[in-house]
Formats: sequence, C-alpha cells, structure tokens
Amino acid sequence: MEKTLKPIEYGEAVLLWDEEEKKTYLFILQKNASFCSHRGKISHDEIAGKLEGSLIFSSTKAPFRVFRPLVWDQMMKVERKTQIVYPKDAGWLALALDLKPGMKVIEIGTGSGAFTILLAQLVGKEGKVYTFDRRKDFLENALKNIKRAGLLDRVVASQLEAREDFPVKNVDAVFLDLPEPWIAVKPAWEALLPGRPLASILPTCQQLQQMVKSLKENKFGVIKVIELLERKILVREKEGVRPFERMVGFTGYLISARKLI
Amino acid sequence: MEKTLKPIEYGEAVLLWDEEEKKTYLFILQKNASFCSHRGKISHDEIAGKLEGSLIFSSTKAPFRVFRPLVWDQMMKVERKTQIVYPKDAGWLALALDLKPGMKVIEIGTGSGAFTILLAQLVGKEGKVYTFDRRKDFLENALKNIKRAGLLDRVVASQLEAREDFPVKNVDAVFLDLPEPWIAVKPAWEALLPGRPLASILPTCQQLQQMVKSLKENKFGVIKVIELLERKILVREKEGVRPFERMVGFTGYLISARKLI
Amino acid sequence: MEKTLKPIEYGEAVLLWDEEEKKTYLFILQKNASFCSHRGKISHDEIAGKLEGSLIFSSTKAPFRVFRPLVWDQMMKVERKTQIVYPKDAGWLALALDLKPGMKVIEIGTGSGAFTILLAQLVGKEGKVYTFDRRKDFLENALKNIKRAGLLDRVVASQLEAREDFPVKNVDAVFLDLPEPWIAVKPAWEALLPGRPLASILPTCQQLQQMVKSLKENKFGVIKVIELLERKILVREKEGVRPFERMVGFTGYLISARKLI
Amino acid sequence: MEKTLKPIEYGEAVLLWDEEEKKTYLFILQKNASFCSHRGKISHDEIAGKLEGSLIFSSTKAPFRVFRPLVWDQMMKVERKTQIVYPKDAGWLALALDLKPGMKVIEIGTGSGAFTILLAQLVGKEGKVYTFDRRKDFLENALKNIKRAGLLDRVVASQLEAREDFPVKNVDAVFLDLPEPWIAVKPAWEALLPGRPLASILPTCQQLQQMVKSLKENKFGVIKVIELLERKILVREKEGVRPFERMVGFTGYLISARKLI
Repeated sequence: MEKTLKPIEYGEAVLLWDEEEKKTYLFILQKNASFCSHRGKISHDEIAGKLEGSLIFSSTKAPFRVFRPLVWDQMMKVERKTQIVYPKDAGWLALALDLKPGMKVIEIGTGSGAFTILLAQLVGKEGKVYTFDRRKDFLENALKNIKRAGLLDRVVASQLEAREDFPVKNVDAVFLDLPEPWIAVKPAWEALLPGRPLASILPTCQQLQQMVKSLKENKFGVIKVIELLERKILVREKEGVRPFERMVGFTGYLISARKLI
Repeated sequence: MEKTLKPIEYGEAVLLWDEEEKKTYLFILQKNASFCSHRGKISHDEIAGKLEGSLIFSSTKAPFRVFRPLVWDQMMKVERKTQIVYPKDAGWLALALDLKPGMKVIEIGTGSGAFTILLAQLVGKEGKVYTFDRRKDFLENALKNIKRAGLLDRVVASQLEAREDFPVKNVDAVFLDLPEPWIAVKPAWEALLPGRPLASILPTCQQLQQMVKSLKENKFGVIKVIELLERKILVREKEGVRPFERMVGFTGYLISARKLI
Repeated sequence: MEKTLKPIEYGEAVLLWDEEEKKTYLFILQKNASFCSHRGKISHDEIAGKLEGSLIFSSTKAPFRVFRPLVWDQMMKVERKTQIVYPKDAGWLALALDLKPGMKVIEIGTGSGAFTILLAQLVGKEGKVYTFDRRKDFLENALKNIKRAGLLDRVVASQLEAREDFPVKNVDAVFLDLPEPWIAVKPAWEALLPGRPLASILPTCQQLQQMVKSLKENKFGVIKVIELLERKILVREKEGVRPFERMVGFTGYLISARKLI
Repeated sequence: MEKTLKPIEYGEAVLLWDEEEKKTYLFILQKNASFCSHRGKISHDEIAGKLEGSLIFSSTKAPFRVFRPLVWDQMMKVERKTQIVYPKDAGWLALALDLKPGMKVIEIGTGSGAFTILLAQLVGKEGKVYTFDRRKDFLENALKNIKRAGLLDRVVASQLEAREDFPVKNVDAVFLDLPEPWIAVKPAWEALLPGRPLASILPTCQQLQQMVKSLKENKFGVIKVIELLERKILVREKEGVRPFERMVGFTGYLISARKLI
C-alpha cells in the first residue's frame, strides 16, 4: 500500500473536509479547475501533489483538509438516482454476505451503485461483482459512480428483469435490493453455491412477511431479520456528551439467509 | 472459490444449525468424534463429506443443517475471555477502517480475537493484521480462535503496553479496543499513513469526552461518534411482524477519525 | 394531602425498597404478619406507624426503606393474568386520552387492571372508569388489584364482548386493549362525546394497518401512531454513564385518534 | 363533563386540523376574526357554535376539523421562549410524580409553561401548582400560555433563584427543569412530604452523574434514570407499515427519586 504515501494526483477522487463546518466535498482532481463553495475558492492545482491530511486554505482563509475518499465517502457521495444503502446498514449486510477477497457476488438492483462500490472493494481485484438492474439509466449512472471510485475493473453491470434466471452461477453471495425481492429468491437459489448467503433490504413490515415466506418456500434457512438505528453523538469538552437532536428514523429492515440443499 | 463446492472435510470448522430451535453450534470436524446436545447426538463422520446446507438428523430425529461458519459465526463463537465486538458494531467499524485486500492494519487490544478475525478476512492473504495485547493469556486464547477460523497466516500477535510505540509503521488503519484508548492515540498517529483512519469502541460518555479531546490534540480530524441499536424482528406468517421483546440495550460507542499532517 | 404526613397504617399497601439490591416489594400491611425474602425477615408491626422514607433493618441487618406505592408501583406489581400496559406506554396513553379529574372513561380489555389503576387515579374521586372484559376471571383478578390500590370507589367493571354496544354513553375517552381492537371502533364512536379521544395499544404491524383502516372508515381523525423505546441508564460516580446492557425491546405500538362528527 | 357536548364559544381555545395536510393550528376564537393559511381563510364566526369534530371548509375548499385542544396540543403549541418538555417525556414524568387530583406540586424552571400546563391539569381544581423561574420574562410568557389553556386558577407563579429555599412546604411532588438541577436538590428535600417523588430532565451524561451524586448525598432513594425514544410510524393501506424516515433523536434524560427521612 505504498500508494497512500504518494501525493494526490490529477485524475484521482479527492475528499475536501471543511475543518470548521465539518462538511465534506468529493470531486475528481483536474488541471486548471477550481473548487468553489460559500466558504471560498480552492484551485485544484494547489491540491495536486499534497499528501492526505494536508491543510489548505480557501480564498477566504477557511481551513480545509485534503483526503482520498474512504469507501463510505464514495458510497454517500454517489450521484443519486435512487435511494441508497447507508453505511450503517451496509456494514451489517457486508458481514451477512461474508465476502472475502477473490469472491464472486451478484447484486440485483444496482440503483445508484453505492453498495456496489462496497462489494467491489471487499472482493478485491481477484473478485467480481455482477450487478443487474432493469433500468438502463440507473446502470449508466451507477457505472459513472463506480468508475469515480476506481473500481470498474471488477464490476460487470447488465440489464436484467429480477424474475429471470441470473446469467451467472456458482456465486459466493447474492444481494437483493429491489421492491419485490421475493421474485428473485428462486433465481438467487439457483445461482448460489451450497450454504452460501443471500441478503436483502426491505422498507415495510408487510414486505418482510412476504420475503420470509418466499425464503422458506425456496429452501433458505438460518434466516435473520433486524433493523439498525444509528445515533450520532455530540461530544463537547465543556457542555458534555449527548445524542444529537435529529436522527435518521428509519432506512430499512435487513434480512439474511443461507442456501439449503 | 471452488472450495465451497467441495464437501466439508475433517479438520474444518463446522456450523451446525438446529432447524427447529434456531440455535447454532461451532466445532472442528474430527474422526470418530460426536456432537451431543439435549436434542440428541450426531457423529462427525456423518457430517464429513457433506456439502454445505445438507440436512442431517440427530439420534432423536431432530433436523440439523451443516454449514461452514460465516465470519460473524466465527466472531460470535470465539472462546471468550473478554467482552467482544459484536457484528452490529463490527460492520460499521470495518467500514470506518476502509480495509481493502492487501492492507496492513494494527489492532490494540486483541481481547478474544473476535474482531481480529474480521480484520484478517478483510485484508485477505496479501494483507496483514498486527494485533497487540498486554495480557499473554488473552493473546494465547485469541490465537486459538483465529486459528480455528483458518486465518492465522495473516495475523501477527504480540504483547505490548498500549502506551508504548507501536513496532509497525506505515499501516493503513488502526483499531483501538482498550479501556483507556487515549493513551494509544499518539502512537497510533505515528504508525498511520497520512490521512488514514483510526477507529475505537468505548463504553461510557465520560470516556468519549476524553478520547475526542485526545484525538483533537494529537492531530486527528473528521471525527465521528455514533452508537448502533440492533433490533431483532420477529416475522410470523399468521400473527404478523413485530420487534422481539428483549434486545441488547447497549454495547459501546463507536468512534472514527483520520490522521492529519 | 395531610394523609402523606400520616404514618403508614395496617390495611394500607406498603412498598418495601431493598436499598442495596435496588429491588421493591409490595404488600398489604397486616397485624402479626411478616415479610420474608432471601435478605431476611421484617415484621409488619415494625413498619406500622412509620413515616414514608423511613429506614428499617431486616433480621439479617439488610437496610430497607418503607413507602406507600406510587401509581407505577401499583401498576407493575399487579397480580398478572395477562400482559400489562407498562409505565413508559401508560404515560403517553394517558396524555393521549387527555384525562382530567371528574371525567368518565371507558376501557375495553381490563386484563389485569394495571392501566385501569392509572385511569382511576387520573379521573379522581369525582370521575368514573367503566372497564370491560369478556373474561370473568380476568375481571375478578383485576378488581383485587384495583382494590389493593385503593381505587375501587371510582371503577365499574363488567363483562362485555367488545363487538357489542357499550352500555355507557357520552364518555370523555375510550381505551381499547384487545387483540382485535377494530371490532370495538364503531361502539367506541357511539360512546364518545364529539371530538374526544380514543387510544389503543397493538402488538403487530399488520394489526396497525387494520386498525387505522377501521378508524378512518368509522369517522375518526387526527390519527397518531408511535412506538416508545425506554432505555435505562446506568449512572456511576467513577466508571461513568452508559445505557444498561439489556433492555425491553418492544411492548407495543400506540395509537390515538379523535372522534369526528 | 357536559361541557364537551356544548358548542365551541368565543373566547375558547380552538384546534383546527387540516385533514389533508395533517397539520394543526391553535388560536383563541374571537368575533370578526379570521384564520388564514396557505390553504385559505376561515372566519372565526363560522367556527363559533360548532361541536368538536365538525367539518369546515376554507375559502379554497380545503377541509378542516374543529376541536378543543387536548392537553398535549396545549403543551406543543405554547409560545416558546425556551426548550419545552415534549409529550413523550411528559407522560413518563407525570407518572414519576404520581400526581392525583388535589395535590400540591412545585416546579422549578417554568420555562415556557408547557409542562406546567400538564401539572395543572393533573392536580385539578382542588390542587395547586407552584411554579418558579429566575427570569421574569419567562414567567410572563408562561402565564399567557397557561391562561390560554384555561388553567390559571390553580397555578401560582413567582420569581426564584433555584438555590434558595422554596417558599412552599409539605408538597406532594417536585419537578426540576433547570441547567443545574443539583443546586435545587436540598431545597426540594426540605419542601417535600416524606417519601414523595422528585423528577427532573437533563441534557447530558455529565449532568446525570452530578445530579445522581447530589440526590444520594441529600437523602433521596429509589433513583431511576431513563431515556425515551419516540418513533412515529407510517401506516398506509397499500404500501404497508414502517417507521418514518426522520425522528427526534434526543430530548433529554429523565430522572426520578423519592425523599428518604
């Protein structure tokens, strides 16, 4: 990983962190370009050649730090055409899918490609993510997002109706992110290696019921259904510690299961 | 990954799932050995040669399924000498650490090795996990757990006082799991590559305050502090869907930050 | 309220608080009787004549405090034949029902009478609680609990099938606590004064859907549906503050609405 | 309670509910006045004489319902000069304070008077709420809010520094809502009847620690500390049931205790 000692170069994705307002900005570093916000202007050329963590001041003397984006920055900053899988859920789902470097995984419902980015990072260069969506415009947008994250080499994206047979077999894991995931349970079973996991995210209780029914009928076991609530905590030196006053109240129910034979 | 099409062999870790009671058991498959529970007896020899997901009946006709353990099974089933990092937190922490195959990561506070197992899976064969604990007995137990998970090849474990300099440098991520993580913040900064992440888990509000103070004083930025609540959901065909009546109320506060230069 | 300056007398309900184990015990004070636990024995005669908050030692020198029970002690310590409404939910439901001294309220589903006790306290001596259950054994047990709480004078309890017309009209509030509350929505509308509130507690998402449908079809408006999670917090001088490790994960969904005309 | 069969009159508080947008508006009904919103205009004279729950159309044909406000509407719609106690917390605190018609209660920290309104409703006409604030402007605003709720007859409001002795003694309950409630613990003990409850709401973990310490040192027992999370649930006929996407993440920690002697 000597790469991270290397300075940031043109063509790379950059995460700019406003040290005072605690906001971040993600963009591709380009010659002669400029970053502009209400906090002033920064020339891309000033960022080029810097190490991660370096301090840079905007035209209004506002302090910024330059970084390469982490995987969750890449996920949160995708150009969104759809709802995305948030990091709090993505972490659990990644564990549920038990991904290792070199594995092959199918994703049905590419959406904006946020979770695809995580899958691609986890399987590594030797692995492969086969991602499918029924909408061509979603796939095109997702591929841009995945490309910006530098992970295009291990992602294969194509159009597919979820109800159809998956064109790839013997995969290590399947992730379903679509409104009616139960229609894809049977093809998921066909595509999975024995015993390997399927995971999904679902918005309502009624869908959970239908999905669990479908999993049981289609030879899946070890079914787990959970929900995660993330509370951001405010830590201040003088005033003390407490949760933030606003929070995301709900993103989805998470489900995992393993293929029986 | 042709391995997963291969039948389960002697010497491998096996996860036995009681299909009716929804309980799981983890052990190493051995010749002439037997698995015994209040639900009857199963000979290891009957499991050997089976594919994952296969059905097996115990001596009392109770149905079981055989699997290789997933990474979260390996984590939850470690021999515990300490509190462990639970999957709900581990998923978020893994994202925070932004691990990719081939990376090097330091863990201070090996404990029972549950999180070490996840780190080792994420960095893959090309990567390396340097894990340290001040207690030799913890390290010995953790190494047994890591070995059972088949990940010993990429883990280096040694004794260390957290306050000391870390003997490894230029690492991609640092995880701190000890009662006073602030004493390890300065050595963590020294060991990390520029801009790379540190993460930690902490039990009380007061410790959060001290840790955030230490991070700010020792040139860390992009500090995030959260807590995750996991609700298990009961999904029944007739009676409908609702959360379970009991839940884990608290495991720890999670914190992440990035090295500034 | 000079009564509370009066010492505790025979015939009154007593709450004994084990100061070290933080446990409480509720019983009626009787001549010559004794309280016994694993922490020793206390004669009722020693309690008689004491003011609330007094210190008493058991036969094993364990320190106890004597109190009259508060309303939530009365609720939690009912002899249970059914699931009860817990204080966390009872507080919200009481607000939803907007009870004032002197009001009349109907409760369908007396159960063990825990919530009846709160209703009776809120409407006061001038008010009236009409509580109904289809099961005679539940009513008998509930009346014992209500009597022990000293609130029998303002409670009228009778057997009723929820589907039937309620025998009381022009009431200020209706509370429904039964498995299929939607069957009682129409009779509730008939019994309520214009604009006045109905509240209910329900265990599953599917029941919520049916109940909300029924409320809309039967001329109820301003419908609110919520759930409350209670976290107990551990506060220690040295080790600091954090939530407890175990918690009640779910008790029920709460619903409120107002009668339209 | 025949009053509720009586039509709404001039001078009363009215709650207008926008049936389509699910929003509510609170105001005093006045001759020749008009209610105006982006959904059109309604003459107060049209509302006068209506029964609660009646349907009224605005000038733009938007459907509204007229009600008298419930106690939680009165609380949420106070003119705010301060943070208020929200209904979810108010219900629990009311139970903790164990209020009955006719009781006397002290509130330190009147703020905007939201919780004072609930206290006043619970103690009834025979009871009394003594509420104190150090700021005269807060008291004046609170009294306007309490007056609008029609509860002025049972509330006595005066200026007081929390550290001082309370001018009322032998009260049934004390509620502390101020930044440093520990300074009022000793005077609270002096004012309370033996065994009776004190409750408070606090924003940070560090304050909890200090408050619990103070309670223990000043002869309070049966200390409880909790936090309530309220999730609003979205119930739709076709799409199914799920929590709302946004929620209030934190309002305060709740604490209760009883006076020892």
